[in-house]
Amino acid sequence: MIFDKIKEQFNPELIYVNNFIHDNLNSDVELINDISEYIMLFGGKKIRPLITILFGKMFKSDINSISAIASAIELIHTATLLHDDVVDMSEKRRNKTTVNNVWGNKESILVGDFLYTKAFQMMVKTNNFNILKLMSDTTNIMSEGEIIQLINKNNILIKESDYFKIIRGKTAQLFSAASSSGGIISNIKEEYILSLSNYGLNLGIAYQLIDDMLDYSTTDKKFGKNICDDIIDGTYTMPFIHYINSNEKKKKKIIKLLRENNKENFLEIKNLILNSDSIEYTFNLSLFYANKAENALMSIPKNEYTHLAKDIIKFIINRQY
Amino acid sequence: MIFDKIKEQFNPELIYVNNFIHDNLNSDVELINDISEYIMLFGGKKIRPLITILFGKMFKSDINSISAIASAIELIHTATLLHDDVVDMSEKRRNKTTVNNVWGNKESILVGDFLYTKAFQMMVKTNNFNILKLMSDTTNIMSEGEIIQLINKNNILIKESDYFKIIRGKTAQLFSAASSSGGIISNIKEEYILSLSNYGLNLGIAYQLIDDMLDYSTTDKKFGKNICDDIIDGTYTMPFIHYINSNEKKKKKIIKLLRENNKENFLEIKNLILNSDSIEYTFNLSLFYANKAENALMSIPKNEYTHLAKDIIKFIINRQY
Repeated sequence: MIFDKIKEQFNPELIYVNNFIHDNLNSDVELINDISEYIMLFGGKKIRPLITILFGKMFKSDINSISAIASAIELIHTATLLHDDVVDMSEKRRNKTTVNNVWGNKESILVGDFLYTKAFQMMVKTNNFNILKLMSDTTNIMSEGEIIQLINKNNILIKESDYFKIIRGKTAQLFSAASSSGGIISNIKEEYILSLSNYGLNLGIAYQLIDDMLDYSTTDKKFGKNICDDIIDGTYTMPFIHYINSNEKKKKKIIKLLRENNKENFLEIKNLILNSDSIEYTFNLSLFYANKAENALMSIPKNEYTHLAKDIIKFIINRQY
Repeated sequence: MIFDKIKEQFNPELIYVNNFIHDNLNSDVELINDISEYIMLFGGKKIRPLITILFGKMFKSDINSISAIASAIELIHTATLLHDDVVDMSEKRRNKTTVNNVWGNKESILVGDFLYTKAFQMMVKTNNFNILKLMSDTTNIMSEGEIIQLINKNNILIKESDYFKIIRGKTAQLFSAASSSGGIISNIKEEYILSLSNYGLNLGIAYQLIDDMLDYSTTDKKFGKNICDDIIDGTYTMPFIHYINSNEKKKKKIIKLLRENNKENFLEIKNLILNSDSIEYTFNLSLFYANKAENALMSIPKNEYTHLAKDIIKFIINRQY
């Protein structure tokens, strides 16, 4: 597993981040601890903090600052998932019952707010104003992305440009911040910050495209989501957008199938798209952005971490879950 | 109206803040503008920004910084209301239909997040690190207060100490920040900041006690909430806590009445409490905190704004809605 190999390189730092999160989330309020522990226990890949650690180490930032930011970014990510799962009424995430499903929507909203604000407290600890500027901008764009997604829920005719606004906002922006923050804390020159930012942004777009593709193409349980949730949810992503825009007949057929809200029709749509060239198109698009991410690295002098930054791109492109 | 008179003193600054909020909330996303405008149009008393303006002027802070912070504080307040109304499933606030009721819960959650993050963007603009530290701490304590409130929902036997944790968190902390931030941006000495902070904290406690009292004692529509929502919601505040702890017989009677979930019983409880000394007790308690707020002002050399800070206390204590 390429990802495990990358993680191994930063094992001490990842443990440091885990401990940092654990210590900082400790509250007198039992419910907060319970939910925090539940989230941490079934936590995701921690790819965002890993990226911050990677670039933090590349530019010789101190471990305390790296940890604070990497932790804050992971908490922001988690907070958005908590709110997302309420908005989407999700029952499962990564094959585990969601917090809103175990505790409730109210708990998810408020603990989400708690994590958001805790993340800002952590960032204040870095004493770096540029980090706070970056992260307040980032979280604002993220919430805008979520809102655009909500507006386009059940919008079969969603424009490709709106789809890109959504994935830039909800996903790519935080990848971008995870990348650039690693350098910002070391006060590297503006040009490098921009390169890191571009690396993360394009990586994030590639990541989300793959995610949306996997929602169609994954057949096993590894993905941790119900298969093709997106169609059921009325969330129309790249494979769908490409398919219905490829010709008028296909569009009409899909619209007709969606008129009846039943499982067989959803499955038929999924299979139509799966057997079309829209999956490949989405994959190629993600390759295009992966390539942009790799190019962004070129303006930074090659160093011992460069190949790992490239490995992350490879992992994202090749992941099956 | 004492409050209108105080407001008149800061009319230019309040207009400046309104414009600042309006300009900063402007988004490409129509839904955000619609909800923002709706909130602004039916906005509240704006007592928090007024407090920031008052102390900002007292310590000769510049209008741009004052406006940015006052606006951010109002947005944080609004964001918590949006999330609160989802958590409480409120249909009305200040006699107007709530955002969750007009648009939906999802919209309220995400636009709440948008306003939260926008507030942090505004604060970054002040270029003052202490403000960001204050506000990240404040918002975190606020969310903790909201969570303690949620945990104690329907807890008839809620402890007085938990009630105070809740109102300190959800209300008093932001009043405290609204007060101290007015001085922090002018880099006044620590001792004065502490005084402002104490003024706001105690004022906020008094404010919430009056709010909770009014939920029992208001009979007209001015209050903008359904009468005695708190009992119906299972939110047990000071008048209730005092009443059932005053003797064992009363407690048993209330528990019995609450066992049946009907409107007549709710009304009976309301009237029992209304005709007891628990309303007066709550009012006296708020006077106690109002007095503490006034005392906190004493360590700051008397100036042309002191009497207005005292007038705000008077307004809060005497308000009928």
